[in-house]
Parts: sequence; C-alpha cells; structure tokens
Amino acid sequence: MAKVVVDVMLKPEILDPQGQAIHRALPSLGFDGVKDVRQGKHFELDIDAVDAGSVAERVAATLLANPVIENFTIRVAD
Amino acid sequence: MAKVVVDVMLKPEILDPQGQAIHRALPSLGFDGVKDVRQGKHFELDIDAVDAGSVAERVAATLLANPVIENFTIRVAD
Repeated sequence: MAKVVVDVMLKPEILDPQGQAIHRALPSLGFDGVKDVRQGKHFELDIDAVDAGSVAERVAATLLANPVIENFTIRVAD
Repeated sequence: MAKVVVDVMLKPEILDPQGQAIHRALPSLGFDGVKDVRQGKHFELDIDAVDAGSVAERVAATLLANPVIENFTIRVAD
C-alpha cells in the first residue's frame, strides 16, 4: 500500500482570489513579510497497486485537476 | 525569499465527505486499487523573513487551519 500525495494548484497566470484574500488579511493580523499566497488542493490517496504513481497520475488528470486552469504534482510518500 | 508550503488536512477522526465522494467515483471511472482518499488544502507562501518557517507556522495556526478539526504541516521548499 502506497500513500500518494497529489497537489493541485491554479496555473500561475490564473487569478487566485482565495490566495489574494488570505494575503490581504495578513498585515492586519500582524504578519509582515508574506509577499504572496496561492491556495490549492491537497489529496492523499492510499493506493494498493504496483504502479501507484501512475495510477495517481491518471486519477489526478481525470478527476482531481482541471487541466485547462490547473497544474498538479504527484509525490509517492511511502 | 523562501517558498513555504502549508498543507492542511482534516484530523483523521473527522469525516471527509469530499474525499469520500472522490473515492466512490473512482471505480466507475475504471480506477481500482485506490483504498482511501482524503482531501485537504494546500498553500504556497512566499515569505521574506529570516525565520520563514516560524512565520508560516504562526500564519497557519492563526488563519489557514482550524485547530479544532484540522492538522497542518509546514515545509520550507527553498
């Protein structure tokens, strides 16, 4: 059994209003020095297959990410 | 400038309906072998501070995660 982590982020050229809202809230909470915030999605999949990474890649491309506006990264954790 | 990644996940004992919905959709899309899916949030912060990790930790605890139902992990990427 492998744990595979899939992170899905909006492409850099796509506006990220959630990240912007967090970024703008930080100074009033006393946090300086944060220059940018981008928010995405994080998935943890438990996969029972010899090629867990390639299964996760197909799952991500099919179901977890919208390839028009999002990029994803795959990491096999153990 | 450091890029810090914050991943926020529901605590294991908290029901994750988004992850369950994905998990249940997979067999009908032809994916077998995925035993569990949990969904969380992924943040990428650009921080200009000597102690970027500790700034990110305080931002996460204050604004990004709800400590009652969520755990978070911090990773300084570069």
